[in-house]
Amino acid sequence: MNGLRPFCAAVDWGTTNLRVWLLSDDGKVLDERRGAEGLLSITDRGFGRVLEAHLNALGAPGNLPVVICGMAGARTGWLEAPYVETPARLDALADRAVRVEDAKREIFILPGICQRKKDAPDVMRGEETQLLGASLDGVGDGLFCLPGTHSKWVNVEGGAVTRFSTFMTGELFELLRSRSVLAQFASASHGPAESAPAFAEAVRNVLDDSANAFGRLFSIRAAALLENEGELATARLSGLLIGAEIAAATRGRSNSEIRLVASGSLAGAYAAALEVAGLSKTLFDPETLAVRGLFKSARMLWPDKSAKADVA
Amino acid sequence: MNGLRPFCAAVDWGTTNLRVWLLSDDGKVLDERRGAEGLLSITDRGFGRVLEAHLNALGAPGNLPVVICGMAGARTGWLEAPYVETPARLDALADRAVRVEDAKREIFILPGICQRKKDAPDVMRGEETQLLGASLDGVGDGLFCLPGTHSKWVNVEGGAVTRFSTFMTGELFELLRSRSVLAQFASASHGPAESAPAFAEAVRNVLDDSANAFGRLFSIRAAALLENEGELATARLSGLLIGAEIAAATRGRSNSEIRLVASGSLAGAYAAALEVAGLSKTLFDPETLAVRGLFKSARMLWPDKSAKADVA
Repeated sequence: MNGLRPFCAAVDWGTTNLRVWLLSDDGKVLDERRGAEGLLSITDRGFGRVLEAHLNALGAPGNLPVVICGMAGARTGWLEAPYVETPARLDALADRAVRVEDAKREIFILPGICQRKKDAPDVMRGEETQLLGASLDGVGDGLFCLPGTHSKWVNVEGGAVTRFSTFMTGELFELLRSRSVLAQFASASHGPAESAPAFAEAVRNVLDDSANAFGRLFSIRAAALLENEGELATARLSGLLIGAEIAAATRGRSNSEIRLVASGSLAGAYAAALEVAGLSKTLFDPETLAVRGLFKSARMLWPDKSAKADVA
Repeated sequence: MNGLRPFCAAVDWGTTNLRVWLLSDDGKVLDERRGAEGLLSITDRGFGRVLEAHLNALGAPGNLPVVICGMAGARTGWLEAPYVETPARLDALADRAVRVEDAKREIFILPGICQRKKDAPDVMRGEETQLLGASLDGVGDGLFCLPGTHSKWVNVEGGAVTRFSTFMTGELFELLRSRSVLAQFASASHGPAESAPAFAEAVRNVLDDSANAFGRLFSIRAAALLENEGELATARLSGLLIGAEIAAATRGRSNSEIRLVASGSLAGAYAAALEVAGLSKTLFDPETLAVRGLFKSARMLWPDKSAKADVA
């Protein structure tokens, strides 16, 4: 804990994992832990026990308050934090946080955002907190791309999420790579897919003909059979899916600068694909933004609290 | 065996099953069997033993010749029957059949067709024999839709396959319905999906905005969460995928009549979707066409053979 008394604990609780940070009263990370106890692996409403175990391992004081974003607030999570509808001001989300009543400490779960449009219903939980984190840098407005299992493309205008759309790109990639007729060729063992010329070519092809994105999937298999190009299958599949996502998400926006919230190989793949599409981008680290958004929310939940006052 | 001596045995050997027919010398089905020993379930090159077991159960004479179409001719099948390249005359495919040399009877495997186009490589094995079957009715030319795990859309001109494209619609449907984040809502238990208004609406939506087909997948989940419309998920998923296929396959063809080769629920779903798209169709039974195509091929392989001459 670096010797400093934490101001709060901040938790990003997702579907497959969680991250816990202890934050100082100026938002610095004092200590952190990661766990595999995502929403899907928790049974018997064991959220409280999982959280306390992580806080205990971090040596957090028993009365340290906690702010949580992500799937813990889903209907099937710890306690439902009902969605805030678009347009949703990011700096007002903390007003709609729900408190876990039966906990021994103060625990608040932040809401997600929903879009109740008949032709484009959509939901997010967790990404809104990253967007709030971005807004602290004065870069809040714009078109954000948050790639992942379910990629989000989000318009932020005047500090509010006005519309967004989700693409199941990461999930489709995993299903097709591992369980489809493409699995014979598309293994994970071919190195960084986005560096292959076949990746850029696949992005270009689908950008040129985005109405046929589904129809291009089987051609990956056909090329493997006919041209012995099986080793290109992973790069092609990744390029096809990411390219289709970018084509659909950026229609009519050729001049937009994309705020890409990604790290690691995802950041590399999306940066390469955006370059093929001729779109400029600024890169943000998702974890940094999540911590900032959680800290900002904590400051709104406990405006008068001082870490020093809590020192025993 | 109806008391008639068969002219040949005909086999459609697919990835997950096979069908065996005994045919008279005028192409009538005298008897038939189905088996689950598709390409994927046969190990140790056991194709010959599987075939003989089925022929034996049908009481087929030991010298009865056999003609086979489908995946048995794949590189990973019984014996590779190399693809014939487009444009591929349907009535010349039998010339490129390969003979299984180590069999005790005459066994020929028909080739598939490939399209070696750099921007749209594609392959088929089995569907070409159904198309040959259709050509016997004088309805050979036109745009054929053969839905399934891997749907084929095929242009036949002057009795030749000139171009075609494959859509992984059936496979995507199964993967998304059973293994994706949509599986929570999309179960198979909601009755015939194509009869639901939600099916037609999903077809219409994707036809209106086909460049965003991938982007519509997650909205099925969002609508289930926001509007409690989980019971519509299967119909919507089916409509979205079939609609995206039709949109891509019929671009620039608003006046085409589609020759739909399908039966059962697939026929119902595609007929309903084509109607939403304002496209007219003629329906053909896939099995009837396969039998006709196999018989036509057998007649080309053994032009002088008479069933009667074989009577002991």
